[in-house]
Amino acid sequence: MTTMSINIAMCKHSSSFPSKVSPSSGRKPPIGFGYRAGSMKAFKPNASSTDANNVEDNSVTLVLLAGGVGKRMGANMPKQYLPLLDVPIAVYSLRKFATMREIGEIVVVCNEEYDDVFTSEKISKPLVIARPGAERQDSVYNGITKARKETKLLAIHDSARPLTDLEDARRCFEDGAKFGAAVLAVKCKATIKQANKDGSIDKTLDRSLLWEMQTPQVIEPNLLKEGFQYVKENGLEVTDDVSVVEHLGKRVQITEGSYYNIKVTTPEDMFIAERLLNEEPKLRCV
Amino acid sequence: MTTMSINIAMCKHSSSFPSKVSPSSGRKPPIGFGYRAGSMKAFKPNASSTDANNVEDNSVTLVLLAGGVGKRMGANMPKQYLPLLDVPIAVYSLRKFATMREIGEIVVVCNEEYDDVFTSEKISKPLVIARPGAERQDSVYNGITKARKETKLLAIHDSARPLTDLEDARRCFEDGAKFGAAVLAVKCKATIKQANKDGSIDKTLDRSLLWEMQTPQVIEPNLLKEGFQYVKENGLEVTDDVSVVEHLGKRVQITEGSYYNIKVTTPEDMFIAERLLNEEPKLRCV
Repeated sequence: MTTMSINIAMCKHSSSFPSKVSPSSGRKPPIGFGYRAGSMKAFKPNASSTDANNVEDNSVTLVLLAGGVGKRMGANMPKQYLPLLDVPIAVYSLRKFATMREIGEIVVVCNEEYDDVFTSEKISKPLVIARPGAERQDSVYNGITKARKETKLLAIHDSARPLTDLEDARRCFEDGAKFGAAVLAVKCKATIKQANKDGSIDKTLDRSLLWEMQTPQVIEPNLLKEGFQYVKENGLEVTDDVSVVEHLGKRVQITEGSYYNIKVTTPEDMFIAERLLNEEPKLRCV
Repeated sequence: MTTMSINIAMCKHSSSFPSKVSPSSGRKPPIGFGYRAGSMKAFKPNASSTDANNVEDNSVTLVLLAGGVGKRMGANMPKQYLPLLDVPIAVYSLRKFATMREIGEIVVVCNEEYDDVFTSEKISKPLVIARPGAERQDSVYNGITKARKETKLLAIHDSARPLTDLEDARRCFEDGAKFGAAVLAVKCKATIKQANKDGSIDKTLDRSLLWEMQTPQVIEPNLLKEGFQYVKENGLEVTDDVSVVEHLGKRVQITEGSYYNIKVTTPEDMFIAERLLNEEPKLRCV
């Protein structure tokens, strides 16, 4: 375990982000692609704080998944280590989440050869390293096993998503604390239909009910462990982290996020990410 | 009605595209974002022709929807008229579809002030102009009303999709001719969940069955007219063109297309479109 020294000055940075308590499903109107007519600015409702934040200081463990191999970028390293405006993609999440007062520690799941990408960063929160498993869920399991006992919430985040807005993440933490499990998501924009096995259309789904999942996915430790055990015993499919909670029949809350929070998987995504960072400086690294 | 002179030399161009008959749902493997590891090239199966094409010459009417107002681009004109590599986006579809031997005429649905964008083009097929209605389905209705009586298939296409691969469109025509209705679509890549009214997750949908709709959407004229009448009489919601056929309880076939066939709605999409055109010259205008 590698523990970094705490830098109080950086911790204070997080207090500049307004907190907000209400479940994010009430966030209106939907964000579109994140643009208003005639502007490249993100369309965001006022993020004024009306209730007290229900997430204690240092009570959340961020599990940052950086073990993916990533073959689609055509580069000689996994996509999450490619430089985005001169900073490795995965480092965005490390630095940004480290500024949140709610975060108590960060567990990075990565291959040994990339340890120094994270350990060389002077962040203000304890840093722990875990190793990837065969599948994504094995990596998550290895990560949560390294979390400290007293943690109240596990926030699992894909390091290929460098553009997470910390205000969105904060609301997702709040929903996680309130409901036991929450996930950042955006409304589907495309018309989605369900197919029959023969390739014909079975039905058109009600778009107003469809959400595209992102990360972080935020879950109480005992609930996640119970869920992992349940899916393992019953051989169930795990599509993402909160699905283990769904399998238990327990509530998972959707926290409405932003279309900016893209997963960088193709060369086009790198260009989009650069443009979005230029338009929205608050999404950059500190 | 404006009819352009037929340019045989341009008609011949279409014969360089291989035709393919089998329903496109059998097209494997899925295309991903259109990239292979280490390459910007599209990942495409061999498009060899094994059966005779079942779509007669000049039997398809393309209804090109260009009446949208489009406010999200922040420009002073509707997005489909913005220049993409110096050619208005909507003109890509006009020029490219005009090279297909299956296309008998093109009905453009546009506002009067943009007529000359289309009428000034020297295409090899008859061109007809129709006016937009209040809603998308009204525009479609106005367009199909202008189609000639002898047309066998109506192919409705969104002019904001300039990057349609004519091989994909051809397979969609073939599926339309075979099944009565077909739509170009791609498999959903994201994890999609259905929400309850309270913002909690109802269920995770089986991604292997989910498809994101594109255009063209190809329908036999009588079937589309019957469908339009049915939804009108019953006050049903029309999400897209083939949904009127679904409302009738009739079969609609999914034709697997390409992730390149994006709808250009944001400034980022313009950048992506330019990059894709540079990588895939066959998607360009003739």
